[in-house]
Amino acid sequence: MAVEPIERLTRELSRLPGIGQKTAQRLAYHILAMEEERVRDLAVAIFNSKKQVHSCPVCGNYTDTDPCEMCADPRRRKDVICVVRDPRDVNAIERMREFQGMYHVLGGVISPMDGVGPDDIRIRELMDRLQDGTVKEVVLATNPDVEGEATASYISRLIRPLGVKVTRIAHGVPVGGELEYADEMTLLRAFQGRQEM
Amino acid sequence: MAVEPIERLTRELSRLPGIGQKTAQRLAYHILAMEEERVRDLAVAIFNSKKQVHSCPVCGNYTDTDPCEMCADPRRRKDVICVVRDPRDVNAIERMREFQGMYHVLGGVISPMDGVGPDDIRIRELMDRLQDGTVKEVVLATNPDVEGEATASYISRLIRPLGVKVTRIAHGVPVGGELEYADEMTLLRAFQGRQEM
Repeated sequence: MAVEPIERLTRELSRLPGIGQKTAQRLAYHILAMEEERVRDLAVAIFNSKKQVHSCPVCGNYTDTDPCEMCADPRRRKDVICVVRDPRDVNAIERMREFQGMYHVLGGVISPMDGVGPDDIRIRELMDRLQDGTVKEVVLATNPDVEGEATASYISRLIRPLGVKVTRIAHGVPVGGELEYADEMTLLRAFQGRQEM
Repeated sequence: MAVEPIERLTRELSRLPGIGQKTAQRLAYHILAMEEERVRDLAVAIFNSKKQVHSCPVCGNYTDTDPCEMCADPRRRKDVICVVRDPRDVNAIERMREFQGMYHVLGGVISPMDGVGPDDIRIRELMDRLQDGTVKEVVLATNPDVEGEATASYISRLIRPLGVKVTRIAHGVPVGGELEYADEMTLLRAFQGRQEM
């Protein structure tokens, strides 16, 4: 007694991350109860996002302009580039409202286990951006996990010969966290990175 | 530095129930990373569900046929109608795989607080279905809350003069639950509804 369009909608929704079968069904029924115009708005927003958004040819972040607004912004510092894994990370760093430089989105990290090598992410594009001598510092802000560290090391070895300063974001105890609950690796990094007060 | 299509998608997604700002953003980035064909499938499934699905003119359940498959199914018993608040409840009862009769979806419950009166839900349509004498029993399966009880009482008073049997689903301790955690009202109903073993 399945109503095909409802089944199909539930199936498509359940493919999204964090949305199980039950939640998908709840969402499907909610959508059916929405006004037609709102449903159209939702469908169009999904469709257009993919149509209109692409990677900036310079930094690799999502954009609907060429280059992206950040790359084109004359107020941002051109002498420092922050390297991140994906567009989400740009968002996280922008929320901090402190970094005023440029970004470079790798679109992934080196992961031999997943068959991702240095040529599969935007490392060559990063090296190209360093050629004209404008950039004085590259901040490596990949995640503090195995792949993120390996990727940061790899990039740092490539850049150092160019005479460009390479930095890595600090690892340590999260602000507001408790020492008691910090894992050994984090504590070790926090000690290694200790600074004079 | 907002990318408008991403902002718009995040906004539309965050209007869905149980999806906050953070989840909406996570979903938006996931959608941007999906293959274009899969994004189109999702958008079309949403759009078509609303276009193709409507309320069955007989029972009020969601359907893409007229009448719905269940109303048209000759294998289902025509002499008993189960009355529920909305299409989700039909689904829940069907999952039980026990009820073989027809359904009647009210599309809401009587709720003076929300300005919903008897004429705002499909009570008249239910009465029409009882006119030809085919239906021998009406099972009232509205929720066991104040509005659900009030609606069941109201409908039962309307139907009784027609000589049609009116029943109400049992209230009691949920299967697998523990007495210790049952609230007083549920326990009271469980005692009132006790049956000889």
